[in-house]
Amino acid sequence: MTDKLAPDCSLASKMQRGELLDVNCPSREILKHMTSRWGVLVLIALAQGTHRFSELRRKVGGVSEKMLAQTLQWLEDDGLVVRTSFPVMPPHVEYRLSLLGEEVGEKVEALADWIEINMPRIMRARAARSPLVQEAGAL
Amino acid sequence: MTDKLAPDCSLASKMQRGELLDVNCPSREILKHMTSRWGVLVLIALAQGTHRFSELRRKVGGVSEKMLAQTLQWLEDDGLVVRTSFPVMPPHVEYRLSLLGEEVGEKVEALADWIEINMPRIMRARAARSPLVQEAGAL
Repeated sequence: MTDKLAPDCSLASKMQRGELLDVNCPSREILKHMTSRWGVLVLIALAQGTHRFSELRRKVGGVSEKMLAQTLQWLEDDGLVVRTSFPVMPPHVEYRLSLLGEEVGEKVEALADWIEINMPRIMRARAARSPLVQEAGAL
Repeated sequence: MTDKLAPDCSLASKMQRGELLDVNCPSREILKHMTSRWGVLVLIALAQGTHRFSELRRKVGGVSEKMLAQTLQWLEDDGLVVRTSFPVMPPHVEYRLSLLGEEVGEKVEALADWIEINMPRIMRARAARSPLVQEAGAL
């Protein structure tokens, strides 16, 4: 353990001590928000800059208005996203990452980039296991 | 963009070109598996070494037998987890990360570590927004 600088409070080391995955740990909820179906994609989108709600909705393909609003609310409550409402008519609301959000956005992008870059390897692994797996994945 | 070495096929750059978040992109499904409620936690647990099903179930607090089995199946189908069944009685089945799984496990751990280390900042942000947010989070 001397070659790793991760502090003892890291999730990984907590898990080694059998503490981490306590259902009641508040870090669980934060992880859930960030890695919710849409949380990752919204963080990636906002890492590109400030967006209005309608712009985010277009960028994050497949997200419903309700789920986008819920996801933004979670990320805002966690201090990762800043919502700015301009007092004009019609209403103008913008969303951007906070400093905290930018930090975690980098981690999320690293994960997303890995997936995209390694998609060929993953697809080969799926194909090798079973043709049915691929078909199921296309549904 | 000259100071960033991310290839054009990265999720982040695809998004800039408006390509990424196509609902039909297979990378969506892989991302969903890895960042599913339990996927992240199972990857972190297996990053610590080989586990039997029952060991994983104990380590990943709160996971049901059904959801753990489903999560392991997804990760196995994606080539991230290797399942080894020993022909003995009673049955003995072990799970470990593949080489692919170890690579993505590092990214997931980096995200998890960030969350744990920054929990105080996140909790302060939540408290600053509203006491109700904290209470809701504790439910």
